[in-house]
Amino acid sequence: MSAPSINNRAAVHPAGRRPRAIVYCDANLGQIDGKTANGLVRHSERYEIISVIDHVQAGRDAGDVIDGTPNGIPCCVDLDEALAVAGFTPDLFIVGVAPTSGLLTTHERTVLLDAMSRGLGIVNGLHEFLNDDPEFAAAAAIYGVEIMDIRRPKSKADLHMFDGSILGVTCPRIAVLGTDGAIGKRTTATILTRALNGCGVRAVLVGTGQTSLMQGALHGVALDAVPAQFVAGELEAAVVGAFEAEHPDVIIVEGQGALSHPSYLSSTGILRGSRPEGVILQHAPARRAISDFPAFPMPTPASEIHLIETFADTRVIGLTINHENMTDAEVSAAIALYELELGIPATDALTRPTDRLVAMVFAAFPGLRAESATAAR
Amino acid sequence: MSAPSINNRAAVHPAGRRPRAIVYCDANLGQIDGKTANGLVRHSERYEIISVIDHVQAGRDAGDVIDGTPNGIPCCVDLDEALAVAGFTPDLFIVGVAPTSGLLTTHERTVLLDAMSRGLGIVNGLHEFLNDDPEFAAAAAIYGVEIMDIRRPKSKADLHMFDGSILGVTCPRIAVLGTDGAIGKRTTATILTRALNGCGVRAVLVGTGQTSLMQGALHGVALDAVPAQFVAGELEAAVVGAFEAEHPDVIIVEGQGALSHPSYLSSTGILRGSRPEGVILQHAPARRAISDFPAFPMPTPASEIHLIETFADTRVIGLTINHENMTDAEVSAAIALYELELGIPATDALTRPTDRLVAMVFAAFPGLRAESATAAR
Repeated sequence: MSAPSINNRAAVHPAGRRPRAIVYCDANLGQIDGKTANGLVRHSERYEIISVIDHVQAGRDAGDVIDGTPNGIPCCVDLDEALAVAGFTPDLFIVGVAPTSGLLTTHERTVLLDAMSRGLGIVNGLHEFLNDDPEFAAAAAIYGVEIMDIRRPKSKADLHMFDGSILGVTCPRIAVLGTDGAIGKRTTATILTRALNGCGVRAVLVGTGQTSLMQGALHGVALDAVPAQFVAGELEAAVVGAFEAEHPDVIIVEGQGALSHPSYLSSTGILRGSRPEGVILQHAPARRAISDFPAFPMPTPASEIHLIETFADTRVIGLTINHENMTDAEVSAAIALYELELGIPATDALTRPTDRLVAMVFAAFPGLRAESATAAR
Repeated sequence: MSAPSINNRAAVHPAGRRPRAIVYCDANLGQIDGKTANGLVRHSERYEIISVIDHVQAGRDAGDVIDGTPNGIPCCVDLDEALAVAGFTPDLFIVGVAPTSGLLTTHERTVLLDAMSRGLGIVNGLHEFLNDDPEFAAAAAIYGVEIMDIRRPKSKADLHMFDGSILGVTCPRIAVLGTDGAIGKRTTATILTRALNGCGVRAVLVGTGQTSLMQGALHGVALDAVPAQFVAGELEAAVVGAFEAEHPDVIIVEGQGALSHPSYLSSTGILRGSRPEGVILQHAPARRAISDFPAFPMPTPASEIHLIETFADTRVIGLTINHENMTDAEVSAAIALYELELGIPATDALTRPTDRLVAMVFAAFPGLRAESATAAR
């Protein structure tokens, strides 16, 4: 089937409810390679998440595992237990692990085929497209279930080349970039979008990864699966599409990786394709080396800001902090220190009031504060 | 069929000669969108180019059209004339136009199907894979000819993620980057590689585009067709493969687009994947706007050098000039002025002695001069 990435308006189940889904993230919930599951447990508009399979965390509440706040989603040891706990057969089985290789292990293949045999459709955000795999394609036909390969790009003829149409988008774009992958860019972008809408500013999120598309972002594309030639153009088309469809006051663009990253190119595509007026930089002060690359030290916020502002005609309007391995006092100290050192506002989107995040945006874009004031009257 | 990109050692025809090919480049020979044909007319190790189809240049010599120097390759008005001039049916029909969209027009499809009906195989470097097109797949079966889709990436399972193995490559890498696409990076890289080998330095070219792979580069990958996630890793693997197979003194990496380019991401992948110690920057002083984007002015060499040296831990060791729309006196003036302004050597690889290009490399890498002196003894 074709990519569901731009089909989220039609994602409501025929029975009038959202599809119910089990998320598979064995031994990785709350970890970096479990970032798809972590995101879905925090926020899911598209699917109703009923449980997470992770034998390490079995018996715990998934929200508690990730953020220390229970949210009623149980962790189960395996599919048998997940089905028993649910008391019904859900619609979907979501692959919630995102290993660096993007490929399934033999054991994971067995687990997925088992879920299909019990009537669950598969939502797959890996680079490996299961509809192209003879064994999975056969299983889908035999068991009468669907496989959704979220990352599958459109056919070549439908992919967009960059054409400069972004120059006609008259509302500001703010990209949430970072100093590393799996550092909280999507979470900050989601919280910021919600907070802006909460105070009367029409903000639209454009997703750039498979997780935000699974979560229900109405606009976006999984950039890292797009052939390099079309990355900037595909994002440009998504931003232009969001602008024309929603007439927003501001567009928030989810970042990927880091512009300084030794491997990932998507930040280049995000800066070129969306041409943001402002950038918010997400950073984890306690992280020593970048994820999956122990030989590569983390960049400093100052060096990343210099790189971003040299690479694109934009400015970094604020810093947001990922508090992993930090005490609350350390987060406060980091906020104060970075504001002093960098001369821009800093906050932590998860543990500090969202007012601070909104104030960061209003300080850089006073026109949005005026929108908010008008809406409040 | 699988990509022939890494199969150039086996490219010799069973009859012991190189495959003979007609290059199709109607109305575009010598133009920017004809860059694949221009490259093959200048240099082809893999195929013997017997003629070019371009009704605008019909009757002229292709070398004369491109560089003002006849090379015995005739331009023909159409396939009928090309076959009549040849007096035999060649092996292959090469798609030598490279439009921005990467897609064939209806007329071009008709021309290709006609060539297949006469027994010629197709070499296709476009983004559109003809083996996936039902009409072309059927024609290949009916006429018993092959279609080679040069840009087709490997299957997902065979694509490389960046893994840092480039850190084990002990010889220097020099990337030939540019201030725009279609500006002469491949030509300069090819001339430099040949010149270094000519003076006893074992230099290997790693190609990064479909044209250099068609020309016969033994190592490389068409980067812009690779999903963004794998671009740096695929180039890293090609460079590591070249290093291990050839034990060269230096590796020359063909650039793509420009790091400042509003659309193309490949330069990011080249700097990240090959981690070059040195960069040569190709620039066209008389070009006003970047190719295909009249709204975007050309960057200056100084701004591009600053961007490259901020983006990567490397240095620009010299500037090479594309003399389009310049007199010889203007080229000499540009060389003198840029050397003064930028403080690095400058030359034109096509019109100035290749000694200058070699001296530029020796000045930055004195160890290579020593290799050359040893070889001369």
